[in-house]
Amino acid sequence: MAYQKVLIAGKWRNSKTPVCFNAVNPANKQSLPEMYPVSGQDDVNEVISAGKQAAVELRTAPREKFAQFLESFADRIETNADALVEIAHLETALPKEPRLRNGELPRTTDQLRKAAKAARELSWCHATIETSVNIRSKMGPLDGPVSVFGPNNFPFAFNSISGGDFAAAIAAGNPVIAKANTCHPGTTFIFARLAFEAVKETGLHPATVQMIYRTPPDLGLKLVSHPYIGASAFTGSKKAGLRLKAAADKAGKPIYLEMSSVNPVFILPGAIEERSDDIAAELFGSCALGAGQFCTNPGLIILQKGDRSEQFIHTLTEAFDSNRPGILLSSTGLEGITEAVEILKSAGAALITGGKKVEDEGYVFANTLLRVDGKTFISNPQELQTEAFGAASLIVVADDIQQTKEVASVIEGNLTGCIYSHTKGKDDKAYTILESELRTKVGRLLNDKVPTGVAVVSSMNHGGPYPATGHPGFTAVGLPASMLRFTALYCYDNVRPNRLPIELQDKNPTGTMWRLIDGEWTKRDV
Amino acid sequence: MAYQKVLIAGKWRNSKTPVCFNAVNPANKQSLPEMYPVSGQDDVNEVISAGKQAAVELRTAPREKFAQFLESFADRIETNADALVEIAHLETALPKEPRLRNGELPRTTDQLRKAAKAARELSWCHATIETSVNIRSKMGPLDGPVSVFGPNNFPFAFNSISGGDFAAAIAAGNPVIAKANTCHPGTTFIFARLAFEAVKETGLHPATVQMIYRTPPDLGLKLVSHPYIGASAFTGSKKAGLRLKAAADKAGKPIYLEMSSVNPVFILPGAIEERSDDIAAELFGSCALGAGQFCTNPGLIILQKGDRSEQFIHTLTEAFDSNRPGILLSSTGLEGITEAVEILKSAGAALITGGKKVEDEGYVFANTLLRVDGKTFISNPQELQTEAFGAASLIVVADDIQQTKEVASVIEGNLTGCIYSHTKGKDDKAYTILESELRTKVGRLLNDKVPTGVAVVSSMNHGGPYPATGHPGFTAVGLPASMLRFTALYCYDNVRPNRLPIELQDKNPTGTMWRLIDGEWTKRDV
Repeated sequence: MAYQKVLIAGKWRNSKTPVCFNAVNPANKQSLPEMYPVSGQDDVNEVISAGKQAAVELRTAPREKFAQFLESFADRIETNADALVEIAHLETALPKEPRLRNGELPRTTDQLRKAAKAARELSWCHATIETSVNIRSKMGPLDGPVSVFGPNNFPFAFNSISGGDFAAAIAAGNPVIAKANTCHPGTTFIFARLAFEAVKETGLHPATVQMIYRTPPDLGLKLVSHPYIGASAFTGSKKAGLRLKAAADKAGKPIYLEMSSVNPVFILPGAIEERSDDIAAELFGSCALGAGQFCTNPGLIILQKGDRSEQFIHTLTEAFDSNRPGILLSSTGLEGITEAVEILKSAGAALITGGKKVEDEGYVFANTLLRVDGKTFISNPQELQTEAFGAASLIVVADDIQQTKEVASVIEGNLTGCIYSHTKGKDDKAYTILESELRTKVGRLLNDKVPTGVAVVSSMNHGGPYPATGHPGFTAVGLPASMLRFTALYCYDNVRPNRLPIELQDKNPTGTMWRLIDGEWTKRDV
Repeated sequence: MAYQKVLIAGKWRNSKTPVCFNAVNPANKQSLPEMYPVSGQDDVNEVISAGKQAAVELRTAPREKFAQFLESFADRIETNADALVEIAHLETALPKEPRLRNGELPRTTDQLRKAAKAARELSWCHATIETSVNIRSKMGPLDGPVSVFGPNNFPFAFNSISGGDFAAAIAAGNPVIAKANTCHPGTTFIFARLAFEAVKETGLHPATVQMIYRTPPDLGLKLVSHPYIGASAFTGSKKAGLRLKAAADKAGKPIYLEMSSVNPVFILPGAIEERSDDIAAELFGSCALGAGQFCTNPGLIILQKGDRSEQFIHTLTEAFDSNRPGILLSSTGLEGITEAVEILKSAGAALITGGKKVEDEGYVFANTLLRVDGKTFISNPQELQTEAFGAASLIVVADDIQQTKEVASVIEGNLTGCIYSHTKGKDDKAYTILESELRTKVGRLLNDKVPTGVAVVSSMNHGGPYPATGHPGFTAVGLPASMLRFTALYCYDNVRPNRLPIELQDKNPTGTMWRLIDGEWTKRDV
């Protein structure tokens, strides 16, 4: 049987395994024609060995080459936009426009170019020099390749071989072993082809980028825990993420996970009083974006009881009812949301609307709202924080601000938390009470704004406390900060000047690089 | 039976457990009179609850108070230097002078004062502001207390309630739960008393510092994995460290470990030719410092075969033989080094000198040198990297630079790695070959310098790849960098100006704080 080739050690070759799989078009549940291999032990061993060799060689490659690679790759993506949009649409059912072509694709190339800029400019490595003792340090690439496991919901911007983790790992100087998301292997194949062309053009080590489509679960565990691996990045389900984490942890290998988040949105009474309908409309837009399959989707909405809140719920319900639900990414996703809604119901949540699969050619689940009172939520917080990945949100109606604070106190680590409040200060006291609980539970705290839409800027935190991620100190979005996940701290003590890396030599290597010299951030030479 | 009180929730009180232990004077193997409790479940629960309350309250405490506390504590330590030196000497047998009084004590107060400076000055939190989107972020304290497990070998500078981890955790705004090292409970008691006096004086939350002496192992695991814990820091044996790591990892709790390191020292032929005796003398000093019980002790010395290397070994052996061995910290330490030397011998290392316990009033092991050829080392690297904690080093005699490189390639993650080379460039080619393997295996690379003596400066890295530590991106020494272990990244997206923490408000809160505003490090206001 003919199937697509894998990219290992600088060669497109057949996988050494006979098992294969198809992608499925979520819009009609039909298998797509192309066949892709499931890589076995041999492929995984080879990809790791080649990645390790690349890591060793890349240490001494000029940083400029990484920048050139990232830019060349971004250019090629733009040139091949039609093909990418076409296949990604078939594999994910995400709209071609504006989502794929005008949203996610430019975001992807923008990330790659920002990563190129960071790689070239060097400030990201936090070069620190103490002249009195001649001790110098900086962050630098890891001792082995970075394995990246991409999610199903962003076929471009978080793709394992074009997305944020990929760009950050490469910009920091690491080779990447991409494990395609099995929902969009064809999209990933094109990216791998373009990336490898860019590798050849720039003359980086041929195993700087490698790609396999799928492995049996035990080989995924092997990949993240192998002695030659530098670190891993995973975006996806909590269940899969925790299994990988356990394997990586046991081997002492860093792994950065983005696993699950219900992204609580608190709407205080003054905000409801002031602009109920506007907030409902904005919130629905955020809940339904991408059929609700965003990591920052607002899955939990917390109000305080009263007539105005009931009216708000009514308005929001109308929006959920009157808009057609989107197509989910896979049958697994459809089963997942169905199961999650049942768990929420069993835990005491009442269905307001939706809650079931929709008869459709594609994978469709009704736009869903549930509600529960604050006391019930507080008494069973774990089950009531089950992530229903899709356009399904649970409304918690609390008695008052004290109970709202209690709700916040039992919320798990999340990527985001929003507070809507009265613009003229009516809610300020309540805000203070609530913020004191919420702040440390979320990576990004928002005011009067929905959580979807993650700006790729240096001050972004797309991270948060466990179990939203595996470590509260790192972000997956925002350059150059996201690069720090894929680095180690290297100190040079009394090392002779000609043996120092350029970032730590007396002369500022770019003239624009920020360095911390004797406690002062500066662009000057030592 | 009367025994010392524990410091829990702002009170010195009796432990709720009847089990107790004594410290032992390593110089005469006699139990010291004071009795200390082994804390049980009740103590551990209370210390965690109180620590969590303190963490919540400390979030809004002025940063200045942390600085005042650290300075007040440092002053009290100086005032009580006599008592501290006296008890630490009894509990550790480390020399009163210069080691305890003139070395470790000033280092400890210096660390606390540097931490105070960092806490006051605020640059450590990496405030990052993007004005175009009004997204601001900074590092801040964790959601719960930091538990600190101190090692036996630095009763002051790494003490769980006065050392580097303590200072870093407090300066970042976290309360600390100190678990005393059971070898020096009396020293730790005095520090806890002084720290608590300073807490009261500065008006910080009474549970900002808490201290228990000892727990059964399962409660140690509970401490690092409890949902209320922010993070943990551990310095000590690999065996104990890995058990704590497994528990913390499983619970998704950050833990920073400093576990073991053999600190390879490579001496290239040109350096031997040029200054053999000087290097031997310097190296012996480093090997024997603190009876060899330093985390950066040179446990592995790599030479290339030849007459000059044999002469070097002879000179080094004479130094090992002619100097009296120091007293080890405990009977466990004595058993540990005895066992480790046996493992090294079984793995093919030949004893040059020492290798056995010395009949003495105290715990003494002979200064020990072993040797092995490069081929044997490469064929059994794991056992031959067994850490013999004390004045015991293994010399590896390699055939040539290629085999030296192979030796480097099988070395595990270490805190430090040194290369001695010819000062006029004779070894430069060999250096390049060797460095390419060694660099990523060690946190700190040194030239022509022994690894002991860890400067407390911003560019220090007292960390390294696993298994030297649990994460290659962090340092345990060097302010403010070491503080980042005990922080999370907090982002503020569209948060109203009056609700921002002072570090992220438009006005620079100290005038001296460095912030990254729109990509420029600056002290200006927004």
